[in-house]
Amino acid sequence: MARPPAPSANDPLRSRCPIAGALDLLGDRWTLLVVRDLVFYGKTRFADFLASPEGISTNILADRLDRLERRGLVERRRYQEHPPRDEYHPTARCRALRPVMRALIRWGQRHVPGTAQHPPRGLAAPPRRG
Amino acid sequence: MARPPAPSANDPLRSRCPIAGALDLLGDRWTLLVVRDLVFYGKTRFADFLASPEGISTNILADRLDRLERRGLVERRRYQEHPPRDEYHPTARCRALRPVMRALIRWGQRHVPGTAQHPPRGLAAPPRRG
Repeated sequence: MARPPAPSANDPLRSRCPIAGALDLLGDRWTLLVVRDLVFYGKTRFADFLASPEGISTNILADRLDRLERRGLVERRRYQEHPPRDEYHPTARCRALRPVMRALIRWGQRHVPGTAQHPPRGLAAPPRRG
Repeated sequence: MARPPAPSANDPLRSRCPIAGALDLLGDRWTLLVVRDLVFYGKTRFADFLASPEGISTNILADRLDRLERRGLVERRRYQEHPPRDEYHPTARCRALRPVMRALIRWGQRHVPGTAQHPPRGLAAPPRRG
């Protein structure tokens, strides 16, 4: 697997800690939900991400997909020319976030009241895609 | 272990997804670094968190410690009265985030160039505290 692009001069690492490095990309309320939709639910189209129950806004979604693409987690593919429409596919680097999401699922189920104890089909045993 | 406080009416769950529920608390660039310092480095005092290499600001640190306390991840203990000074200790709920942090470490080491491949002593085999 190719190494990901190095952080730009505008986006230096805060420290050499790999947790901090991961959070520089993933540390917000939305990015890992887009990754969840890509990896566990097989979503590829803008409207499908928008339809997720958390109600992500179009500008946040567009920003997160762009950042994920720039950091090599998402591959964009044109599926329609008139008007132009793209699909978004997770890369191996994106699918490698499954253990992070599984650990968050286990913690959330146990420690955040009101979350689903039995995730929908596909979340526990996600299909390989991309 | 007692159930954590339910989210308040001002802080409803965005969905029943446990990833979303976890990110409601943890989804920012700083919270898991404070948790790292509490759980892996055994830090307990405000100045010690401030001294971490990422350079967290005093207002963000105070906010994150307050939120962690409100959600039952941190226990505050007064250790000096004049002037008043508190220590912060991780609860079991906080220590239960170890698998999340370990998964982030593995992903960051592999996919974020420039991060340390061999974390300092204590991060790989953290002591039990609190």
